[in-house]
Amino acid sequence: MRLKVDLLPKSGYGDTVILVDVLRATTTASIILEGAEQLFITGSLGVARGFADSYNLLLAGEREGLPPEGFNYGASPADLRGLKFERDVVLTTENSPKAIEAVSEAKHVLLGSFYNARAVVDKALELATDEIAIVCAGMYGDETLEDIVCAGFFARRIQKMRGEVELKDAAKLAISLLRAYPDVQEALMGSTAGGMLEKLGLLEDVAVSSLISQSTCVPRLENILQWDGKSIFRFGAA
Amino acid sequence: MRLKVDLLPKSGYGDTVILVDVLRATTTASIILEGAEQLFITGSLGVARGFADSYNLLLAGEREGLPPEGFNYGASPADLRGLKFERDVVLTTENSPKAIEAVSEAKHVLLGSFYNARAVVDKALELATDEIAIVCAGMYGDETLEDIVCAGFFARRIQKMRGEVELKDAAKLAISLLRAYPDVQEALMGSTAGGMLEKLGLLEDVAVSSLISQSTCVPRLENILQWDGKSIFRFGAA
Repeated sequence: MRLKVDLLPKSGYGDTVILVDVLRATTTASIILEGAEQLFITGSLGVARGFADSYNLLLAGEREGLPPEGFNYGASPADLRGLKFERDVVLTTENSPKAIEAVSEAKHVLLGSFYNARAVVDKALELATDEIAIVCAGMYGDETLEDIVCAGFFARRIQKMRGEVELKDAAKLAISLLRAYPDVQEALMGSTAGGMLEKLGLLEDVAVSSLISQSTCVPRLENILQWDGKSIFRFGAA
Repeated sequence: MRLKVDLLPKSGYGDTVILVDVLRATTTASIILEGAEQLFITGSLGVARGFADSYNLLLAGEREGLPPEGFNYGASPADLRGLKFERDVVLTTENSPKAIEAVSEAKHVLLGSFYNARAVVDKALELATDEIAIVCAGMYGDETLEDIVCAGFFARRIQKMRGEVELKDAAKLAISLLRAYPDVQEALMGSTAGGMLEKLGLLEDVAVSSLISQSTCVPRLENILQWDGKSIFRFGAA
């Protein structure tokens, strides 16, 4: 089996992808699907509102890190943790839908974070036939430190479980970076996204997103809906 | 002053670029310009031969790591080190000319490696008005471990000399990676390019390319010539 790490989303994904957006979308997705049956992710605020309104769904999400007006919830893992949702949830964030779009051609798309690390790696190993691609979402086209450290965490675990697999330099880099961050929270705190959350008074989100293997919930892309010509990605727990 | 690290060549370079292709093009370029007045770099074997023939120049370069037929030299820093060239040199390699092309719009383009680390950073600080971009050449579109560790080495030195500069995650990542490789030769040995050179029996090139600040020679792009519709990049010592 092949294993690769992409420091930013590329294209040509065929088999199994673990998409990583630690701060905060993929952490939050696991947490929401612990308490809801289905999670719909979209990049459009208008689509999120219209779709939630039509199907009587709950609205969660952020613009510039904070919940848009009229939303039930923000995108904060610390706030959403432990909630039981009576209805399905629509989540809209600025960055992650583009990354989901980029990997959506793959046979299996899983959302991974430190929070569901063990479970998402186990599920990827179960589903993959030829290749696991660990894909870092990045932020507005730039690489993000916390996603690459998390990718290294997954890659190291896959290596341990599957023995030696041949790795390109991006995967080696991600694994090596773990040596520089024995405490992964330091990477999250030192990242651009971590700094932005700190400024917004959301340090608790950084702390929750640094917790390792707290959840066995693995969000998996089920299908893509179209709404006003835009994509809504439907996730369930794998 | 702004400082950024690009893990692969992007576009939009305006001020000062340090291009990094440690194994082996930018290391070799420094070594050649210690013994020659001018260095012409091209990606085309035909152009290299035709241009060298027309101007009675020496031919150095590689295809799949080894010197093409009829060449005076390979692209091996270990072999070229210490030579005095009686004529100017044409160097053709497979990967680096694409990276030079990508950054060639910048006002100042310098070639950097561990081998000329101190000198290239000093020269970049002297030339730059707004921004130094440290650009990793990569290999066939993939990131390379040794270039990113070298970029981290430059970035850390610039930080030390200029005090705190705001860094994006790619620069933080490169600097952090140095903590994982206190001996930079380990990064070169563990990289894909290092492995390829080892297979070709060229481990001495990895050793030479790991030496730090052995040369004060900083190759600088002077201008771009056109030959049969293809680019030849003319470098002199800055």
